[in-house]
Amino acid sequence: MSETGRTETFSDGVLAIAVTLLVLDLRVPARDTLHGSLAAALARQWPAYAAYLTSFLIIGIIWVNHHAVFELLGRIDRVTLFLNLVLLLTVVAIPFTTALLSEYLTARVDNARTAALVYSGVMLAMSGGFAALYAYVAHRPALLAEGVDPKAVRASIVRFSAVGIALYLGTVVIALFSAPLCLLAHLLIALYYCFQQIRPGPRTGTA
Amino acid sequence: MSETGRTETFSDGVLAIAVTLLVLDLRVPARDTLHGSLAAALARQWPAYAAYLTSFLIIGIIWVNHHAVFELLGRIDRVTLFLNLVLLLTVVAIPFTTALLSEYLTARVDNARTAALVYSGVMLAMSGGFAALYAYVAHRPALLAEGVDPKAVRASIVRFSAVGIALYLGTVVIALFSAPLCLLAHLLIALYYCFQQIRPGPRTGTA
Amino acid sequence: MSETGRTETFSDGVLAIAVTLLVLDLRVPARDTLHGSLAAALARQWPAYAAYLTSFLIIGIIWVNHHAVFELLGRIDRVTLFLNLVLLLTVVAIPFTTALLSEYLTARVDNARTAALVYSGVMLAMSGGFAALYAYVAHRPALLAEGVDPKAVRASIVRFSAVGIALYLGTVVIALFSAPLCLLAHLLIALYYCFQQIRPGPRTGTA
Amino acid sequence: MSETGRTETFSDGVLAIAVTLLVLDLRVPARDTLHGSLAAALARQWPAYAAYLTSFLIIGIIWVNHHAVFELLGRIDRVTLFLNLVLLLTVVAIPFTTALLSEYLTARVDNARTAALVYSGVMLAMSGGFAALYAYVAHRPALLAEGVDPKAVRASIVRFSAVGIALYLGTVVIALFSAPLCLLAHLLIALYYCFQQIRPGPRTGTA
Repeated sequence: MSETGRTETFSDGVLAIAVTLLVLDLRVPARDTLHGSLAAALARQWPAYAAYLTSFLIIGIIWVNHHAVFELLGRIDRVTLFLNLVLLLTVVAIPFTTALLSEYLTARVDNARTAALVYSGVMLAMSGGFAALYAYVAHRPALLAEGVDPKAVRASIVRFSAVGIALYLGTVVIALFSAPLCLLAHLLIALYYCFQQIRPGPRTGTA
Repeated sequence: MSETGRTETFSDGVLAIAVTLLVLDLRVPARDTLHGSLAAALARQWPAYAAYLTSFLIIGIIWVNHHAVFELLGRIDRVTLFLNLVLLLTVVAIPFTTALLSEYLTARVDNARTAALVYSGVMLAMSGGFAALYAYVAHRPALLAEGVDPKAVRASIVRFSAVGIALYLGTVVIALFSAPLCLLAHLLIALYYCFQQIRPGPRTGTA
Repeated sequence: MSETGRTETFSDGVLAIAVTLLVLDLRVPARDTLHGSLAAALARQWPAYAAYLTSFLIIGIIWVNHHAVFELLGRIDRVTLFLNLVLLLTVVAIPFTTALLSEYLTARVDNARTAALVYSGVMLAMSGGFAALYAYVAHRPALLAEGVDPKAVRASIVRFSAVGIALYLGTVVIALFSAPLCLLAHLLIALYYCFQQIRPGPRTGTA
Repeated sequence: MSETGRTETFSDGVLAIAVTLLVLDLRVPARDTLHGSLAAALARQWPAYAAYLTSFLIIGIIWVNHHAVFELLGRIDRVTLFLNLVLLLTVVAIPFTTALLSEYLTARVDNARTAALVYSGVMLAMSGGFAALYAYVAHRPALLAEGVDPKAVRASIVRFSAVGIALYLGTVVIALFSAPLCLLAHLLIALYYCFQQIRPGPRTGTA
């Protein structure tokens, strides 16, 4: 298998598992200790569903972007491998931060804030990791696949990295005020990315 | 790796993990709190085995159909990627709905109904997601692989999508009356699909 | 991706996840409720380590044999896909039966027997599923890869299937008498298979 | 799929799952039993984050090295398959030993020592398994890919294997004195490997 092929396989595996482990955050109310109806107990879990949906979309978009970056590469070196590992380190933490946020979303305001800060902080680290990986390969024309224009790739770095980091920095600020609003902001960012990426445009052309 | 290849790898990963996480719904009776024999305790867990078997077959058939759809494709675009993500979002929820149904299958009638409605509702959403993905690619001849007849593909949409959605709508109705019958209906649908797909026929010809 | 390629990817995924989920059966003694030393508490968990080792080797050998069977195939049909699903259905159950056996290995004799019977029964079903898959493809020369001799393949069926089924039937009998002996028998079978398959010979030649 | 390709896929799957299961060691403090603030409760879990980071890097490096070894191979035989399984057996145990070490890192000194010894012992077994796999293929020129110099491969064995085993033996010794220092030693070894492998040099040239 080629070097990029195997890195993609491993990354896809980690992303696929991380996205699937999110389901472990959806907990079945225990039958023995159920008070009232199951429907009411499930409805009370709305933070878990909202967090599941949001994190699923985020990891899905990470996968789509990871995919787009690796399509530009003809080969990878050791630094790329380790930057990729750092990115995956943050992705693997997402099921934990998702469970944390859904457990504390409606808790006492200081604890909800802590959970939202941790959730947003890991997303910020993730976008930073992505920016580092993207910047590294964009500045090494030798790693790019044939026919990929290094200038166009470099030009797209600033926007891609800056937008992601700025958006997640924004969620850190929102987390200070309201955990539910912070989760909503993450969901809106994820939906924005979905639609922005579906729409054809200059960026879609290169990535 | 090709675009369709990597999407298949990621989807296969998610499907493989979702199908394997079903085993977490099979719980070992704790030795310290066991009343009576282990055999009796295991026998009382029959809803868990029935739900495991049913959900395993359903995810298996999803994989076979996913496989069949992607064999028709020569390339994919961003919309296909996101429709695929939506489909996976419902598939990843299956281990949760399976655990829910097996926990409440023999519970108070209103809670059993809730669990059966959630289980059937997610399956309905899954068949809807599949129909959307299938309909999208079938109407874009540019995405189809060489030698695939767009007309034949479109002709098979109505039956494929309508049958799936109709069957799962049926299970939602059955869920209103009896959770065990609803699970049985899901099992029969899964077995029907297994045999229908094994038998050669006009649909098997295209997929 | 080719049909056999994607089936192998999916199967490899399920096998890899099943083998890795075995680790969930190794439980960390809770610090708050620990009586005596951690070393003693870990030592008391020997059934879990023995069951982990045994099931790991068994799934590893299943993977090696699955690998060997699919190397003989040039293409697969729907029946092969579903026979493969049935085989995977039993493999996915192994982490559950492993946890069950390790929890009850040293329990009251009737409960230990139940656990050993369930463990051996699932292994018997697995060897039956494997035999069915192997027998099916061996009798369909059109599915075999170029250069594979259908006669040699058929000749190896009887031994391969019969030996596996006979050995696991033997463990069912042993389970009636002693759960620890039954686990030991499974370990010895797994080790036998490891060494038998490493040694070159007529069977290794075809599979 | 080629023989080496499928072994890489299976190994990548196991490594990807093992690395992702590490997240299960990060536990969300239960809201109902929380004393004090969530921030304080999360801060008290620092051993879990330190162990997560360390084990993540270690498994990441295992993947990079596994990758490097398999790039040297043109084909594999049954013994390679089983040596690879033995290596994976130790890797799969890492999420368990990581959870054990993070639970007992700050516990009574004898229990912390036990946990650190188990953690270091499994890493030592892993480096032993890797050395065995590497030594086996290095002594079989028939397994090497075209253009790979068997002499250069053999020359790198001693350093590669000896360094790994010596380092992990060192951690076993440190475990006898201090569990936190032992975890720190593992983290430093992991970071050393990261940087050593990024730096170009004679070993990086062959692997």
